[in-house]
Amino acid sequence: MLDPLPFASPGAFDPGLEAFLQEAAHHLCRWLGTAADRPPLPGLSLLPEVEPQLLGVSGERLLADLQLLMEGSYNPGHPGALAHLDPPPLTSSLVADLVCAGLNNNLLAEELSPTLSRLERSLCGWLARRVGLGDGASGVPASGGSLSNLMALVTARHSRGLQTCGEAVVIGSADLHVSIDKALVVMGLAPEALRRLPVDAAGRLDPGQLERELIELERRGRPVIAVVASAGTTVRGAVDPLTAIAAVCRRHGVWLHVDGAIGGVLALSERHRERVEGIGLADSITLNPQKLLGITKTSSLLLLADPGLLPATFATGLPYMEPSWGPCHGGESGLQGSRSAEILKLWLGLRQLGLEGIDRLIEAAIGRRRRLRSALETALPQGALSLLSGPLHLLAFRPAGLDASASASWSAQCRADLMAEQLMLSRPLYHGHHHLKAVLGNPHTGEAELEMLVAVVKRSLPTIAAPNAAPNAGIGAASLGAVGNDNGARVSHG
Amino acid sequence: MLDPLPFASPGAFDPGLEAFLQEAAHHLCRWLGTAADRPPLPGLSLLPEVEPQLLGVSGERLLADLQLLMEGSYNPGHPGALAHLDPPPLTSSLVADLVCAGLNNNLLAEELSPTLSRLERSLCGWLARRVGLGDGASGVPASGGSLSNLMALVTARHSRGLQTCGEAVVIGSADLHVSIDKALVVMGLAPEALRRLPVDAAGRLDPGQLERELIELERRGRPVIAVVASAGTTVRGAVDPLTAIAAVCRRHGVWLHVDGAIGGVLALSERHRERVEGIGLADSITLNPQKLLGITKTSSLLLLADPGLLPATFATGLPYMEPSWGPCHGGESGLQGSRSAEILKLWLGLRQLGLEGIDRLIEAAIGRRRRLRSALETALPQGALSLLSGPLHLLAFRPAGLDASASASWSAQCRADLMAEQLMLSRPLYHGHHHLKAVLGNPHTGEAELEMLVAVVKRSLPTIAAPNAAPNAGIGAASLGAVGNDNGARVSHG
Repeated sequence: MLDPLPFASPGAFDPGLEAFLQEAAHHLCRWLGTAADRPPLPGLSLLPEVEPQLLGVSGERLLADLQLLMEGSYNPGHPGALAHLDPPPLTSSLVADLVCAGLNNNLLAEELSPTLSRLERSLCGWLARRVGLGDGASGVPASGGSLSNLMALVTARHSRGLQTCGEAVVIGSADLHVSIDKALVVMGLAPEALRRLPVDAAGRLDPGQLERELIELERRGRPVIAVVASAGTTVRGAVDPLTAIAAVCRRHGVWLHVDGAIGGVLALSERHRERVEGIGLADSITLNPQKLLGITKTSSLLLLADPGLLPATFATGLPYMEPSWGPCHGGESGLQGSRSAEILKLWLGLRQLGLEGIDRLIEAAIGRRRRLRSALETALPQGALSLLSGPLHLLAFRPAGLDASASASWSAQCRADLMAEQLMLSRPLYHGHHHLKAVLGNPHTGEAELEMLVAVVKRSLPTIAAPNAAPNAGIGAASLGAVGNDNGARVSHG
Repeated sequence: MLDPLPFASPGAFDPGLEAFLQEAAHHLCRWLGTAADRPPLPGLSLLPEVEPQLLGVSGERLLADLQLLMEGSYNPGHPGALAHLDPPPLTSSLVADLVCAGLNNNLLAEELSPTLSRLERSLCGWLARRVGLGDGASGVPASGGSLSNLMALVTARHSRGLQTCGEAVVIGSADLHVSIDKALVVMGLAPEALRRLPVDAAGRLDPGQLERELIELERRGRPVIAVVASAGTTVRGAVDPLTAIAAVCRRHGVWLHVDGAIGGVLALSERHRERVEGIGLADSITLNPQKLLGITKTSSLLLLADPGLLPATFATGLPYMEPSWGPCHGGESGLQGSRSAEILKLWLGLRQLGLEGIDRLIEAAIGRRRRLRSALETALPQGALSLLSGPLHLLAFRPAGLDASASASWSAQCRADLMAEQLMLSRPLYHGHHHLKAVLGNPHTGEAELEMLVAVVKRSLPTIAAPNAAPNAGIGAASLGAVGNDNGARVSHG
């Protein structure tokens, strides 16, 4: 292989660079195409030399070192990779990330990213309108959902004139994502400023209780920065009753932020939008295409009904830049200054999938969760498992009737047994008990994995499993049929 | 071309995906290899269709749409791209970004990025030691310098027990980067909490004045979150006297953060470290390999003498993750939760360059700034230009003796004249006057561009240019020789 120059010549096609990229692409295609041969989580692995040597090393050596890292990496394309919200990468994302790197444009300012700034504005506007935020809505990408949530709260605080108010609070449910706690630290608020209300049996914030809390806060003169509702909680994928919560917020003049990092993308789908009904009534929404849609990390967005509040909050002036020829520079609309064109892979990915493809991805993920739930219910005696899920693609479970310590040992052992079958689930601690959790967004997960999962879980409960239940009984025509025929989502969000 | 699947099969090599990637790589190599044929900033351009259609589009169409975007993108590889700190991309970064996308690992937690978490920790440790922060030092990557600076201030505030203190202040010079203002907004501090002290004639914070300010604040009982010194100010690349400032901070028990987004990487070089002398005495340092080193955006780091303060500040617990098998999960060490393996391209880039290559990049950039300065001084009558630079690779200038409005028109016209010659400079407003600014880190910028730049600037000053100065007189053997022979950096930081 010809060694590439460190910087491609601006005046000549570099065949060494092309060979370097093609060789890397070949390695990667091999790694992706053998995902099923390696476990989801690799065993011990070798770390290549980390520090730079005195002289640079060859392209060949760089690729060999990369290969070592690849062998020790988490393997999201394995059909048994069900632990977390990290999907295999959409192929258009790979192309887009390559081109994004090559362009090295900077969304900080328009003179550093002319078409890409327009693409970003245009796509953010489309997304915000599509999720129902209204005609003037738009937003800004962020390098991850924690940043989107933080930007939302800072914007809400600023728009309320509570910028330096130490008394202000944020309200949400007990199941709010931990990034909200982190946001409070960054914003200089005490941990007590986050008021977590208990969830109902379905894991949702109760609008009545929210309203009572708001009335009590008004009585005590405590200003509210925002109510944060979840469209997809971390462990079970519950969706708060957004329409009712929005009505409460409107009555009390309070900002509603929806953390839709997990479930917000459902609002892009005509067919599944009802699962996050009311999301368009929010003031701001976090949406993470890096999860269910397979856009490579990081791809997150903060969408707002009134996007003008972003520069009103974050703009400091960029006195070293030419003025923006659009509404404002990309670096004036949020926390980040210099940033790459993360919008490129989102745009290309949505175009690759099409609206139909988005629907099918969501449909398949929800179908898998339903099938797994129904298979577990069929294979195990009634009441043997406590099963937790919402309208999305997440399912958490634990044996019923165990105390916290027994749940902890069961979950550790069962996770290990699942790992031995190349099924990786996570083991969240939820409301005092360890659970096992499956995220069913992986497009490669098929019947075989779900059957094995049920079999292992069943074996893990020898003392309570019904002796007459046939192995793998759960995944049959009946439960498969149930997926196709179930139009009851409007009511049950099943 | 075979159309790639949206998700590569985990059980078979996908020739369609390989062809898709190779075709994209070919487009990109062509774009990079023709950079000199297109201006740094393109003219009007076409935006492809932004919204997804009902059905996904073919790989061929995706690449054609990408091509439209490429044609309208900023062109950092053009030899005349001198406006900002955005370099052409290092070729190893392209490979690393491609592989990073393919792996789609998540630095949030170790079970989602086993070797990559180790690589990150190991390289951050090496970098922190290399810049002089001491044996136990390390840090965390961030998606841009604004986030690194924000994390530094939040960490400093937390470690001082000033978490919810509305009276606390941050001190720096008038030339501090605007990201510090933005950080204060996010942190819930009033704009007045940022105390900007005037700079000296060289654009640097005066340690004596800093000390008087600290004494006055102590007298008034105002607690200090941090002093922020700059190792490379935005417009002229000035480096504050870090050793003296560190001594003041130590005397007063105050946290010292060095914003080394621009100049911090010089501390990696044995030869040029002296230009940012004292940087290792800081408590925390922002360092942006995405600038001078050509690592693709985003690549920034926050390095700390005591990295244990990061999880102490940001960790919220990740109850849905297995415990970390290292010191802590990557998502507990900073603002960001889920994030990609940005460390991959930094590691690969440093390995491609080697320590020698890093030295040479820095050397060449500083050499260009020196040559340009000396050529302008030679070509124009003494005192015709007010020239501003520090020890780095930035040079700002304007005609001497013009008022603010005349500076504004001169800079706009001269920038346009430069653009007509495919030289892109920026036009910062600095201390009330518009300047032109050249960032001389572009490795493709050669003598021809510098000569043309001098000629255009000279033409822009017809009434004051000396009639007997020969055109382009500035770039000759004398000024070239001066670069090679100049070992006076220790004293003059020339």
